[in-house]
Amino acid sequence: MCGIFGIIGHAEASNLAYLGLHALQHRGQESAGIVSSDGARLHAHRGMGLVHDVFDETVLSRLPGDAAIGHVRYSTAGQSILENAQPFSVSYGGGWLGIAHNGNLTNAIELRSSLEAAGSIFQSSSDTEAIVHLIARSRAGAPLDRIRDALLRLEGAFSLLFSTPDMLVAVRDPHGFRPLALGRIGNALVVASEPVAFDLIGAETLREVDPGEMVVIDRAGLRSERPFPQSLPRRSCIFEHVYFARPDSVIDGVGVYEARKNLGRILAEESPADADIVLPVPDSGVPAAIGFAERSGLPFEMGMIRSHYIGRTFIEPRQSIRHFGVRLKLAPVRALVRGKRVVVVDDSLVRGTTSRKIIKTIRDAGAREIHLRISSPPTRFPCFYGIDTPSRRELIASSHTVDEIAKYITADSLAFLSNEGLHRAVGGNAHCDACFSGNYPVPFPESADDRVHLRLVAN
Amino acid sequence: MCGIFGIIGHAEASNLAYLGLHALQHRGQESAGIVSSDGARLHAHRGMGLVHDVFDETVLSRLPGDAAIGHVRYSTAGQSILENAQPFSVSYGGGWLGIAHNGNLTNAIELRSSLEAAGSIFQSSSDTEAIVHLIARSRAGAPLDRIRDALLRLEGAFSLLFSTPDMLVAVRDPHGFRPLALGRIGNALVVASEPVAFDLIGAETLREVDPGEMVVIDRAGLRSERPFPQSLPRRSCIFEHVYFARPDSVIDGVGVYEARKNLGRILAEESPADADIVLPVPDSGVPAAIGFAERSGLPFEMGMIRSHYIGRTFIEPRQSIRHFGVRLKLAPVRALVRGKRVVVVDDSLVRGTTSRKIIKTIRDAGAREIHLRISSPPTRFPCFYGIDTPSRRELIASSHTVDEIAKYITADSLAFLSNEGLHRAVGGNAHCDACFSGNYPVPFPESADDRVHLRLVAN
Amino acid sequence: MCGIFGIIGHAEASNLAYLGLHALQHRGQESAGIVSSDGARLHAHRGMGLVHDVFDETVLSRLPGDAAIGHVRYSTAGQSILENAQPFSVSYGGGWLGIAHNGNLTNAIELRSSLEAAGSIFQSSSDTEAIVHLIARSRAGAPLDRIRDALLRLEGAFSLLFSTPDMLVAVRDPHGFRPLALGRIGNALVVASEPVAFDLIGAETLREVDPGEMVVIDRAGLRSERPFPQSLPRRSCIFEHVYFARPDSVIDGVGVYEARKNLGRILAEESPADADIVLPVPDSGVPAAIGFAERSGLPFEMGMIRSHYIGRTFIEPRQSIRHFGVRLKLAPVRALVRGKRVVVVDDSLVRGTTSRKIIKTIRDAGAREIHLRISSPPTRFPCFYGIDTPSRRELIASSHTVDEIAKYITADSLAFLSNEGLHRAVGGNAHCDACFSGNYPVPFPESADDRVHLRLVAN
Amino acid sequence: MCGIFGIIGHAEASNLAYLGLHALQHRGQESAGIVSSDGARLHAHRGMGLVHDVFDETVLSRLPGDAAIGHVRYSTAGQSILENAQPFSVSYGGGWLGIAHNGNLTNAIELRSSLEAAGSIFQSSSDTEAIVHLIARSRAGAPLDRIRDALLRLEGAFSLLFSTPDMLVAVRDPHGFRPLALGRIGNALVVASEPVAFDLIGAETLREVDPGEMVVIDRAGLRSERPFPQSLPRRSCIFEHVYFARPDSVIDGVGVYEARKNLGRILAEESPADADIVLPVPDSGVPAAIGFAERSGLPFEMGMIRSHYIGRTFIEPRQSIRHFGVRLKLAPVRALVRGKRVVVVDDSLVRGTTSRKIIKTIRDAGAREIHLRISSPPTRFPCFYGIDTPSRRELIASSHTVDEIAKYITADSLAFLSNEGLHRAVGGNAHCDACFSGNYPVPFPESADDRVHLRLVAN
Repeated sequence: MCGIFGIIGHAEASNLAYLGLHALQHRGQESAGIVSSDGARLHAHRGMGLVHDVFDETVLSRLPGDAAIGHVRYSTAGQSILENAQPFSVSYGGGWLGIAHNGNLTNAIELRSSLEAAGSIFQSSSDTEAIVHLIARSRAGAPLDRIRDALLRLEGAFSLLFSTPDMLVAVRDPHGFRPLALGRIGNALVVASEPVAFDLIGAETLREVDPGEMVVIDRAGLRSERPFPQSLPRRSCIFEHVYFARPDSVIDGVGVYEARKNLGRILAEESPADADIVLPVPDSGVPAAIGFAERSGLPFEMGMIRSHYIGRTFIEPRQSIRHFGVRLKLAPVRALVRGKRVVVVDDSLVRGTTSRKIIKTIRDAGAREIHLRISSPPTRFPCFYGIDTPSRRELIASSHTVDEIAKYITADSLAFLSNEGLHRAVGGNAHCDACFSGNYPVPFPESADDRVHLRLVAN
Repeated sequence: MCGIFGIIGHAEASNLAYLGLHALQHRGQESAGIVSSDGARLHAHRGMGLVHDVFDETVLSRLPGDAAIGHVRYSTAGQSILENAQPFSVSYGGGWLGIAHNGNLTNAIELRSSLEAAGSIFQSSSDTEAIVHLIARSRAGAPLDRIRDALLRLEGAFSLLFSTPDMLVAVRDPHGFRPLALGRIGNALVVASEPVAFDLIGAETLREVDPGEMVVIDRAGLRSERPFPQSLPRRSCIFEHVYFARPDSVIDGVGVYEARKNLGRILAEESPADADIVLPVPDSGVPAAIGFAERSGLPFEMGMIRSHYIGRTFIEPRQSIRHFGVRLKLAPVRALVRGKRVVVVDDSLVRGTTSRKIIKTIRDAGAREIHLRISSPPTRFPCFYGIDTPSRRELIASSHTVDEIAKYITADSLAFLSNEGLHRAVGGNAHCDACFSGNYPVPFPESADDRVHLRLVAN
Repeated sequence: MCGIFGIIGHAEASNLAYLGLHALQHRGQESAGIVSSDGARLHAHRGMGLVHDVFDETVLSRLPGDAAIGHVRYSTAGQSILENAQPFSVSYGGGWLGIAHNGNLTNAIELRSSLEAAGSIFQSSSDTEAIVHLIARSRAGAPLDRIRDALLRLEGAFSLLFSTPDMLVAVRDPHGFRPLALGRIGNALVVASEPVAFDLIGAETLREVDPGEMVVIDRAGLRSERPFPQSLPRRSCIFEHVYFARPDSVIDGVGVYEARKNLGRILAEESPADADIVLPVPDSGVPAAIGFAERSGLPFEMGMIRSHYIGRTFIEPRQSIRHFGVRLKLAPVRALVRGKRVVVVDDSLVRGTTSRKIIKTIRDAGAREIHLRISSPPTRFPCFYGIDTPSRRELIASSHTVDEIAKYITADSLAFLSNEGLHRAVGGNAHCDACFSGNYPVPFPESADDRVHLRLVAN
Repeated sequence: MCGIFGIIGHAEASNLAYLGLHALQHRGQESAGIVSSDGARLHAHRGMGLVHDVFDETVLSRLPGDAAIGHVRYSTAGQSILENAQPFSVSYGGGWLGIAHNGNLTNAIELRSSLEAAGSIFQSSSDTEAIVHLIARSRAGAPLDRIRDALLRLEGAFSLLFSTPDMLVAVRDPHGFRPLALGRIGNALVVASEPVAFDLIGAETLREVDPGEMVVIDRAGLRSERPFPQSLPRRSCIFEHVYFARPDSVIDGVGVYEARKNLGRILAEESPADADIVLPVPDSGVPAAIGFAERSGLPFEMGMIRSHYIGRTFIEPRQSIRHFGVRLKLAPVRALVRGKRVVVVDDSLVRGTTSRKIIKTIRDAGAREIHLRISSPPTRFPCFYGIDTPSRRELIASSHTVDEIAKYITADSLAFLSNEGLHRAVGGNAHCDACFSGNYPVPFPESADDRVHLRLVAN
């Protein structure tokens, strides 16, 4: 997953991009980058790591101009290379171009093959590079025409920011898979994956960029277009509400914190538990646990403490300490759980290994019963629209029943939110829930092997 | 403030010390160190920064032996120098000695002056170095006799760990200002400022080290002594319960999480508010806010989001963004607070500047009324026993009434917990509350100027 | 300027590339990179800085395979960005391709413009990227055919290494501007800018790659081709002999050390000086000074000491210390020069500022007379074939007579080697001496401004 | 070995100390430190590594005041710990004290034992810490009286700088083992191990500090004392001239460059060789080789090229490349030595392993005969006065004849300079030559084991 930010018309553009990326840091910790425009040319800096590691005052001072786009990228096990860091910036027939992408093209392999056959070269393993080639190869003349041209070739999930020396262009795919919001600070306009980036810099949130909309902002102002030929049903990602977005964000007009509380409330209705207290798995499970506690009438307790001091590389003891990794990060309040019947609320259950460790840790702390409640349905299908889910083989719910999972994770009981409850909690029926339901709004290549072979990565 | 950890009789002594220090990281982030003993000599490593920055596998491999003591040190504005990093380790007439200290000697200046007059040299600005000199200058022969000798000269707050090639010695001052607990893992014994360090490494908590007790552990086993001539009333620090200790710790037999909930409950009784929701200032205000919500019947909401990505050096925008520092760390959930009457619960109020910023931020997010409730009394007096409070001049409550403070921080109402409520919540009457009451159990030098002049620092 | 190295058929290919690049480090200190081939795909690592900073054992272990190419890049004031670091590596229609380039294409802007017009994108400001695009866009099918195709489009100076999963290709432009040598270690074949890279790894030097030759090496062996339609006169860079190559190198069959001594000998014949001792400006002026001393009968003295401890960023004193930068690097032996008439031999004189400082420093040390002798003609013209000379405006000799220069640098006398002497010393008449004579073997774009505008950089 | 620098009376004291240490960097690369005085107190910074790594502008800005002392420390395999970095700075009964030491106390163990018995603690393994304790324990009142007191207890080699808030004190032991020079810049006075530090900062060299002299400099001026009761014969270290000092230094009134040329001249007289050319082992063997060439009438050639790019940690190829380490550092000019009879001049021969590798490398390059000439006598005895020689067991000349050594290193002939020739070349007979002759001017403890046990290190 990734986060994107853009600004145009502000003397401190790259500084505000830096802050905006900081507010979006939860969307990607692997790499960060900013491309600024001084009106004549673009300036770029990208690096591996967190925003405050990649940038300092010296680096920011080399990103002059009144416009900038930025990108933070998620962390995966493999393919963590600088070449994939965004925004990309290139020089081509239309001049200078910067691009930042959140999402995943479902026709990436096909695009790449045909572009390579036509003589394009690829320096990264990201699908985003294909978009740049499409723009460069467009027969249209003006940069904006080229962008329009290229957009027609894209399939799948994409929230995009383009930067040229003259303008900032923000695009959201017709389904609106990934979020994108529009704001204002003084006379400058800003675009970001989540409005929390606006809150931090003191900008006002105007509205979301609509699915299928292209917003063009230059020094003269903003205009909106609909570059895609047909209108498609809105399918914004429901997992943003479940887990990904920050709780203080508003996504698609829905407050994430309140949506999560609703998840917990409906979960309590659907799957109550005879217990003494309700604990969240912090931090992501907190709002749902508050909702669960409210609806069930059980007391909410912050019964697991999350450590803020975990570094990237932690030395484990040579002798096996059971469930060490989880202990380092989450510690139960022993005096609280001892002898109690405990409801634990978590946002999702993917492989089951972490839940198993958490339950063991709480049981070791003396809990009498542990009832795990998950504020989303079982994750049975991989996402092809930008969320970094593991392959289907690793998704425990794709091959095990709820009872089998409960047994594996050693919970006294386990329940998931229903798909109906999920949609009811979030509101509307315009969300993509493919990871839970298998209903994929956009088809994707059959062979996962191809995808692995080319090592294309989502953004 | 600082945290200390000791272990003896374990093949992975320094590795476990490293993990134990990690669990105590909240007690000090400025420097970290470990001194190990291989039975013949000591090995040391100290550095500035967090535990996982100071140590890596190579460094730990150079700390052999089955015993180790460790130390984490708090971060202050000035005097952040490596020379003050602990544990100290020296060679002297009695052989090798390591020492780790949590607390503050009230007679440090006097000890230092007399030691310097007698020919001792000081390489740090820490009061701990004086203890080493007292041991080195003792006329007693055996190391343990020298330690006993030196202890009689110490006044104030001290939880101490000594390491010699043969043994580990743990001492707690007669008042028991600073916590110290004893545990076991396999055949090894462990000592730590808080039992959370035992939880992490899978050790069992045995008991606390008593005020005035000296525990001597060698390869033969453990024996307990009372080296101080007179028994003094227990005065364990009440601020550990209010703020300092981790909520999953048990200090002096009292669970910190439950104690904090009690603070909130009694605060709600003493100073209710006519409001819609209760928000904590995360993370430290959470348990008290839960208690406040429970007792007041108002809903608890996690209405401020704390960022986990704050680095040490953050670049602020050149143009003034109001209350930027707080925004970076704490973001209100706007959709939640908009139009609401909000109770905000924080653990303490020291200078008032942060509270003022928090209230402003919540007000900007649209709250209708903001009622700040502090789960401790006004902090009117500096601590001379190890907590790093600012000078009295900077404590807003030392010179302002509650009404004046409320006005300064722009709260619609402000209330503190009463001192009686504080003691009732924590239980017993054996706590030092000098920072709230001015009742100092041990006298200290009149002139704060002297203290500043010599730049002696607490541990 | 840059250095390149290639190897194929050796189990430790990337390790030996690392060492080979180390031996070529004098040819470029800004960035370093290696692309290895495991027979199926390429692996790459590039970074800013010296070879031993960019690579460590972990990084090298991620560059598997029995073939590798490497590149070191020179340091310039601006445009020092990672995007320009080589070798480039891409995926394109023909599969994987790596490329390392030493030289400068004189038709780079033209190539780039036409490629951009045809839809290619450029991520660097290096002219080398154009070569990759030409290969990717070739209508030929097999990689080798595509390379042949692309070579026909190149003008100017280029020694090139290409890596595909199957083979290593080494090419030298028809004039042979930049050196390239071929060697063998065991059954593996190696290619390098200078044979000093072979000496370090224990490889045997076989021969140079001929101007206009393409050497194709795969697991089956080596074959040589002449891909260019017409034969052009050899014009190997004479400045390699004057300054750039390492003195222990053999370039174009000529030993560099001996060539430099010859420069000094002929200089002594052409422009003797009535003096007491001969000093080199170390290290580059040493062989010429030895030759000058030998021919003039004056004693050679190592009268200036060069410091080996200069870091990149050195803090200068706030108050002006005269000629501080030079002092830090070069210190005269005061006892030696005091009262003496001194001949100082340097390899070239570009801006005059350094010479001025050196002379001042020697004069301050007490020298009576200082006669500067330069072992090359006045540098009057910029190089467009790969040497990083400043613009013509900055070349003092392009606008000042020798007498004027002597006055500016405060030398008692100044003399340059004649162009005839230069060629006589190096041997043969097949060298490019454009920087001295202005006789450019290959034309280049009129407007230097264009070049600056696109910020294309030589390799 | 170490280098020391002091300055008093200059507004940029710590900046100039930084530069002075840079000029003395050849005397120690392990650690560097500066202690400055602002008239009221001392400020210190020490770190591991080179001067330009340890200090930057921020660090230097925290070292205010018009006086400073600095220290660079040599690099050894073991015991490379920050605790040993100098200058030491302490607070004691006489106030603040800083100390920088070049040399080695022969009674260090005895001093340490008696100080520890009296109650002193030691935080380092350096003998210098004992000096501070002696001062702190002196019954004299004023700092200067205490220093005088302590000096009477010291035996062995010591050039010392003391800093108090009021004054700078420079002392040289009665034999004058280690050099120390006095200079002036404007109204400020400077002291340094070698006058090259004065040259760099533009200071004028006044004279050396005499053996047995104590120079006291305060804001009022300079006065000289003779604090030691008896005058002892000058025994300044002859190895400074052979190898250690920079060639542009003047030590004890003798120019080092000229002394080294004399060593070569006399060596040529004593042990001529029937050969074609003379090569130095760069950089230290250069002046002696020039002298050898001059006297023998053979041509001097810079026939080995030294690389300037060797980093601390260099990755060797897994497969054995013969004599790899030396190759990395020194490369013969093959075209020059091929078929020649070569005289190689080096400054000293300690273990023989490096010479063996150098000869092999030159022989591999095609030399017909190799005659090694060493411009000092065989190193048969360890130094106890500050030079970091290996133990006697490792000195090849302590157990092998010259013929045996020649055979081991595979030289066609080998000759050392005679001890008489050594003294004649350097001038005077007032030098310590214990490492060559075994004539130790000051006795030292019998048991080297004791020394190792306590791990005391020379400075």
